[in-house]
Amino acid sequence: MNIAAAKAALSHLELDENPVSVRAKSRDFFWYSPVLKARLDHITADFVVAPRNEAEVIEVLRACYAHDVPVTTRGAGTGNYGQAMPLVGGCILHMKNMAAVVGVHPGRVIVQPGCLLKDLDAACKAHSGQEIRMFSSTWATATIGGFIAGGSGGVGSCTWGALRDLGNIIRLRVVTMEAEPRVLEFTGEELHRVSHAYGTNGIITEIEMPLAPAYDWVELFVTTQTFREAAQFAADLGNEPGILKKLITVFEAPIAQDYFQRVAPYMQPGQHLLALMIAPHAMDGFLTFTARRPDARIIWRTDWPDWQREPGPVFEYGWNHTTLRALKVDAQITYLQVRYAAPDHLARVEAVRAAFPPGEVMQHLEVMQEGGQTMFAGLSLVRFTTEARLDEIVKIHEELGCMIFNPHRYTLEEGGRQTVDDRQLAFKREADPKGLLNPGKMIAWDDPDFDFAGVYAYARMQVAG
Amino acid sequence: MNIAAAKAALSHLELDENPVSVRAKSRDFFWYSPVLKARLDHITADFVVAPRNEAEVIEVLRACYAHDVPVTTRGAGTGNYGQAMPLVGGCILHMKNMAAVVGVHPGRVIVQPGCLLKDLDAACKAHSGQEIRMFSSTWATATIGGFIAGGSGGVGSCTWGALRDLGNIIRLRVVTMEAEPRVLEFTGEELHRVSHAYGTNGIITEIEMPLAPAYDWVELFVTTQTFREAAQFAADLGNEPGILKKLITVFEAPIAQDYFQRVAPYMQPGQHLLALMIAPHAMDGFLTFTARRPDARIIWRTDWPDWQREPGPVFEYGWNHTTLRALKVDAQITYLQVRYAAPDHLARVEAVRAAFPPGEVMQHLEVMQEGGQTMFAGLSLVRFTTEARLDEIVKIHEELGCMIFNPHRYTLEEGGRQTVDDRQLAFKREADPKGLLNPGKMIAWDDPDFDFAGVYAYARMQVAG
Ligand SMILES: Cc1cc2nc3c(=O)[nH]c(=O)nc-3n(C[C@H](O)[C@H](O)[C@H](O)COP(=O)(O)OP(=O)(O)OC[C@H]3O[C@@H](n4cnc5c(N)ncnc54)[C@H](O)[C@@H]3O)c2cc1C
Ligand SMILES: Cc1cc2nc3c(=O)[nH]c(=O)nc-3n(C[C@H](O)[C@H](O)[C@H](O)COP(=O)(O)OP(=O)(O)OC[C@H]3O[C@@H](n4cnc5c(N)ncnc54)[C@H](O)[C@@H]3O)c2cc1C
Repeated sequence: MNIAAAKAALSHLELDENPVSVRAKSRDFFWYSPVLKARLDHITADFVVAPRNEAEVIEVLRACYAHDVPVTTRGAGTGNYGQAMPLVGGCILHMKNMAAVVGVHPGRVIVQPGCLLKDLDAACKAHSGQEIRMFSSTWATATIGGFIAGGSGGVGSCTWGALRDLGNIIRLRVVTMEAEPRVLEFTGEELHRVSHAYGTNGIITEIEMPLAPAYDWVELFVTTQTFREAAQFAADLGNEPGILKKLITVFEAPIAQDYFQRVAPYMQPGQHLLALMIAPHAMDGFLTFTARRPDARIIWRTDWPDWQREPGPVFEYGWNHTTLRALKVDAQITYLQVRYAAPDHLARVEAVRAAFPPGEVMQHLEVMQEGGQTMFAGLSLVRFTTEARLDEIVKIHEELGCMIFNPHRYTLEEGGRQTVDDRQLAFKREADPKGLLNPGKMIAWDDPDFDFAGVYAYARMQVAG
Repeated sequence: MNIAAAKAALSHLELDENPVSVRAKSRDFFWYSPVLKARLDHITADFVVAPRNEAEVIEVLRACYAHDVPVTTRGAGTGNYGQAMPLVGGCILHMKNMAAVVGVHPGRVIVQPGCLLKDLDAACKAHSGQEIRMFSSTWATATIGGFIAGGSGGVGSCTWGALRDLGNIIRLRVVTMEAEPRVLEFTGEELHRVSHAYGTNGIITEIEMPLAPAYDWVELFVTTQTFREAAQFAADLGNEPGILKKLITVFEAPIAQDYFQRVAPYMQPGQHLLALMIAPHAMDGFLTFTARRPDARIIWRTDWPDWQREPGPVFEYGWNHTTLRALKVDAQITYLQVRYAAPDHLARVEAVRAAFPPGEVMQHLEVMQEGGQTMFAGLSLVRFTTEARLDEIVKIHEELGCMIFNPHRYTLEEGGRQTVDDRQLAFKREADPKGLLNPGKMIAWDDPDFDFAGVYAYARMQVAG
């Protein structure tokens, strides 16, 4: 690893070598996890480079390849698993200068990876009343490239499914890390080589995404007396094909009472909360649906605001923002990502609720489309005590038939389905022969025999000091 | 019934008394059914009136009420069950002069009932790139009022569900048939008083419908070697949330070979056919989906036409157009409407296929959204022999757990779930106290004790002769 030589070769580009800001740009939201916080807090890169275009990306990759310098790509650094953290130092490839919306067309947009989700939506809306189908709840701060390389789905997934579903990404343009970097265009089956691969096997330089019509979504909070009714409301609403929606979130009590300061005054103790986004022209259908449930009460709607202090976008209560809000109030809170598969998702959630003492695991559910059915993605809040107990909590979920995507791990495999993605691995062999892209994140590359019994520890990780 | 007095009172309106054209305007596509053909062929009204606005509708209803003249509303007369046929004569209320698109807004349109579906779509597309969520395959000829009062769903239902689903109709404005007709506005639960009520309890004078974005849908024909693969293809495609589609239809062999002249030359004997409409920006995802099925072969796509004689819109092969095409070739063909409920829809179809001798019942399936799952609506082609055998075929379906909506009956109940719709009946008591609106179509009104064992025969029906 010859940092000095790489820097010299790239000195005509936008470089940042200030240790304080380099360290800031080497961190993401890994600290959500007490497990990762203990392991990754010391990590920092050697320098940051922000290419202005694809030609400069190629230059960076060529130079770093020549000098054996690892490259970790950064969008906005809102990932939760240390995804964007340079475990062995080296170069941070910062995408902020590649943020142009290249073209908006009926049903699709072409965009550079560094574009913020909110800027992308603004451009599509201004151009032709369109918006992206789904976005991470970090819409205001995250990039489209980081969402595709690091995210999975979010606001919109109750209608459109996950990013991995066929049709939710149209095309990715990718630069490889070789002596002479190649530029490749991926569609169809090839997309999954690099989507959700944490930038371990190529740098995304252009993205083509499908669009949906942009509506002035009505955002709502709804309370129920029982958790069962909240979960049933969510599942049933997800099953209404004629009611167009963008968000259906369930918060078990006392999440809202304890962590949502602006919402809490409007709730009774013990009440459960739903956060919803409904198309304006679906509001009549939605109100009819709601009136059938005497237990459900609308306490907030953006088209009829009557709170002294407005709560802000309701989606910034859902997805991983729930955890963020809880953490701000109670540093002991962490979370788990749970898959409650259809058609038994309601029963599975109840089984999990029954398995823990009050207050240890609090249900936060997101309705998603999966394989033609609605199901729940759980982002449960967990009151952290020890790593051993956290592992036990994971195990209890698994024993109850619920898959866990463990957010307390920094590798693709442990945060995913605990198995190697052969397409990603095969493409890494082609595109990153020296293994310099975001090292330590793909176990299959570094330690093919790892058995997933314990926590993976990347041997070459920077030593704290 | 004082026809002369009613005509005199309405003489300043657009009246048609020519017996030939009055008879033509008294008929719909009832002749699809050999059963109805035998019973309704002689039916004719006494005169036709075509109001130019709601005030004239009110005049017609007031005058006909005063003179005890029955009123049967007519859109375009493309209904299949004699829905629009005046069983005791009287007045045909023809909506052709009330066809204005009143206003197009983001996600919704306000329109008069006599507007043709194709004209409505053209106006919404021209205004702001929108279109109605779903349409009857009679898009080119049918009215929006007739679709709502007589139809159930169609092209678009694979994504949006049926017209009866919450959110698929926003508002209906309705005129009652009383001494002094009232004008009512219905939303929410009230919509179902008059939607799919055959105009038996009120005249719809204005409609508010949700809209979807209008895309240049790619239309395709796909062949498979086995029926199982065709049905599975349809079900699986219906379950892909990221692939936006408007039509997924399956035709068992030899439907296409025997009845689709322009398609047949491109098919092998024994091959099965799918008709599809896919959003252009979903084509990449769709082609990826299709490439996973080596048995499936695209033989036609509108974005890549290569047939000597183009087949025309693929949706004019699906829904009830399948029956029409078959009938044109073989007058012995009729059909049944079957509900193959999820999640066992594939198995149910196979069970039904096994229950009949080859050629008697040919599977034609339409993918629909229902309660958050995709299922099949069957519009099976049936080779008609006798009424007794047709009834037996219905019974065999029912014994296999498949609900039949019998298209060989002219009443709401027999064509539906064989039970009284209490909301429709209750509203008829209010809105049509003399029972003058489309008489004979609501058994609950005329013969509340009817037990659905035999075929209902309306006692007051015009006598043939
Ligand atoms: C409060 C909060 C809420 C969240 N909600 C959601 C949610 O709803 N849904 C969801 O999916 N995630 C969510 N996340 C996780 C994360 O915010 C999203 O994945 C986000 O879209 C990441 O974007 P980013 O620009 O911050 O990416 P970064 O964190 O900068 O990068 C993410 C990963 O992608 C790689 N990468 C970035 N750009 C490129 C590129 N151009 N080429 C190759 N690799 C690249 C990085 O190396 C890294 O591995 C949330 C996180 C937080 C903190
Ligand atoms: C080839 C073919 C294909 C078809 N495909 C489909 C399909 O895909 N989906 C489907 O649902 N149907 C289908 N149908 C049935 C029918 O075409 C549709 O229901 C169509 O939309 C009816 O529209 P119309 O204007 O012809 O109505 P009409 O036949 O004139 O009327 C239908 C019913 O509505 C009543 N009505 C009409 N206007 C009003 C009003 N303003 N107020 C109150 N009552 C009124 C009439 O009295 C009658 O009872 C098909 C029929 C044919 C022949």
